[in-house]
Amino acid sequence: MKEIGSLKNPLIKEMKKLQQKKYRDKTGSYLLEGFHLVQEAHKAGITFSAVFVSQRGLQEWDKWFTAELPEMTLVSDDILKSLASQPTPQGIIAVAKTTEETTIDYRGAWLLLDNVQDPGNVGTLIRTADAAGFSGVVLGDGSADLYNPKTLRSTQGSLYHLSVVSQNLMTVMADFKETGLIIGTALDKQAKDYRTVTPPENFALVLGNEGQGVSEEVLGQVDVTTYIEMKGQAESLNVAIAGGILMFHLINQA
Amino acid sequence: MKEIGSLKNPLIKEMKKLQQKKYRDKTGSYLLEGFHLVQEAHKAGITFSAVFVSQRGLQEWDKWFTAELPEMTLVSDDILKSLASQPTPQGIIAVAKTTEETTIDYRGAWLLLDNVQDPGNVGTLIRTADAAGFSGVVLGDGSADLYNPKTLRSTQGSLYHLSVVSQNLMTVMADFKETGLIIGTALDKQAKDYRTVTPPENFALVLGNEGQGVSEEVLGQVDVTTYIEMKGQAESLNVAIAGGILMFHLINQA
Repeated sequence: MKEIGSLKNPLIKEMKKLQQKKYRDKTGSYLLEGFHLVQEAHKAGITFSAVFVSQRGLQEWDKWFTAELPEMTLVSDDILKSLASQPTPQGIIAVAKTTEETTIDYRGAWLLLDNVQDPGNVGTLIRTADAAGFSGVVLGDGSADLYNPKTLRSTQGSLYHLSVVSQNLMTVMADFKETGLIIGTALDKQAKDYRTVTPPENFALVLGNEGQGVSEEVLGQVDVTTYIEMKGQAESLNVAIAGGILMFHLINQA
Repeated sequence: MKEIGSLKNPLIKEMKKLQQKKYRDKTGSYLLEGFHLVQEAHKAGITFSAVFVSQRGLQEWDKWFTAELPEMTLVSDDILKSLASQPTPQGIIAVAKTTEETTIDYRGAWLLLDNVQDPGNVGTLIRTADAAGFSGVVLGDGSADLYNPKTLRSTQGSLYHLSVVSQNLMTVMADFKETGLIIGTALDKQAKDYRTVTPPENFALVLGNEGQGVSEEVLGQVDVTTYIEMKGQAESLNVAIAGGILMFHLINQA
């Protein structure tokens, strides 16, 4: 097995750049932290250009993998920490290639995120869409980057179970209009209580920004608006919670 | 208005200690960051022993409050930063007294948290319980501290809209048994699909730890176990998402 001991190693310095979106976009690569995520990616057939493990990581290896992965490199704890987003990394960080789909099949249920900015919310929504049996998630302009370490961690690996694409929502909605119903969350006069919405088999649910909700422009392309009735004094629900309630309701009715 | 300019001021040093749970427990005080939370607390009649504002905070003051709060002190940005949990605080931090209820009325719908450790999850669950119209939330042993800054922030002020108590769940459940049904999440053979559960008016929903779920001991006291059917490949739902789906379903059936 290869070994790297110095923080100044050129490969490590290069990989550290992947903490920035700019370099991820440029190279089409991203860092994947922790055994669970690396295992989920490996199961999904994602190829790694490098896999860095610490001594501690090697000790835990057997619990997760039956064989060595290609391109495995033993590194010091310092190096692992320098690549990680968390103060105490788990002992493994892989470098994976982004896999953006080019032809999208918009059948089934889709979740569309309009400017959802928090990486934890975006990741949790992808995980929840997977659990609800959605076909895919579209990350519209302004939404958190899929390959942000916090987004990846919150997905718990669900990004490898369904289609996740970054696209302009106005473009995507034009395609959706041909195949199914577009449902958006809003509090306008026409908005229906979500419990009365029965979507067809092919539908899209649009969720909006944490503070502002779905933008006017996007709402203009929506077929039905819906809301969740609140009985208490809370002013709003967290967007991932609202998404969970709506996705599980709608897919059970479709 | 009083002014404090030095980080070494004894009052500031004392208040900084409230970042630790130990001192919060000892003094019965906690730090409340940002205009929205301070306003929600003020509306709920919470008294502040101190309110620290920066120059920037003072400029924003009119948008939130019509008058000066008692005990207001102008502080430097450095001092505000030293008290805050976030790198760029909003310009206001108040010191509030904890208000633990002693006699609890266990009617209506209650959420019981068994060892839910993440402050963000606990805060979001309190916010969601408020939105769903629950009467209160019990934080069982091992659950994140209500007065942790991240918990407070995630509640969005909902802790002032319903009862939130820290109690041992075994004790609380003995009381609940006299008034209503206790529903817990589990995947045992008797567990029912949540869509088939119709609770009475008085009920409690128990949610468990992020990794382990509800403990065996607590499950032993539960009347009905329930689960959320998942159609995709995700192994589990985030506990706050599961809580949102279950709370909104159950309260609509009760």
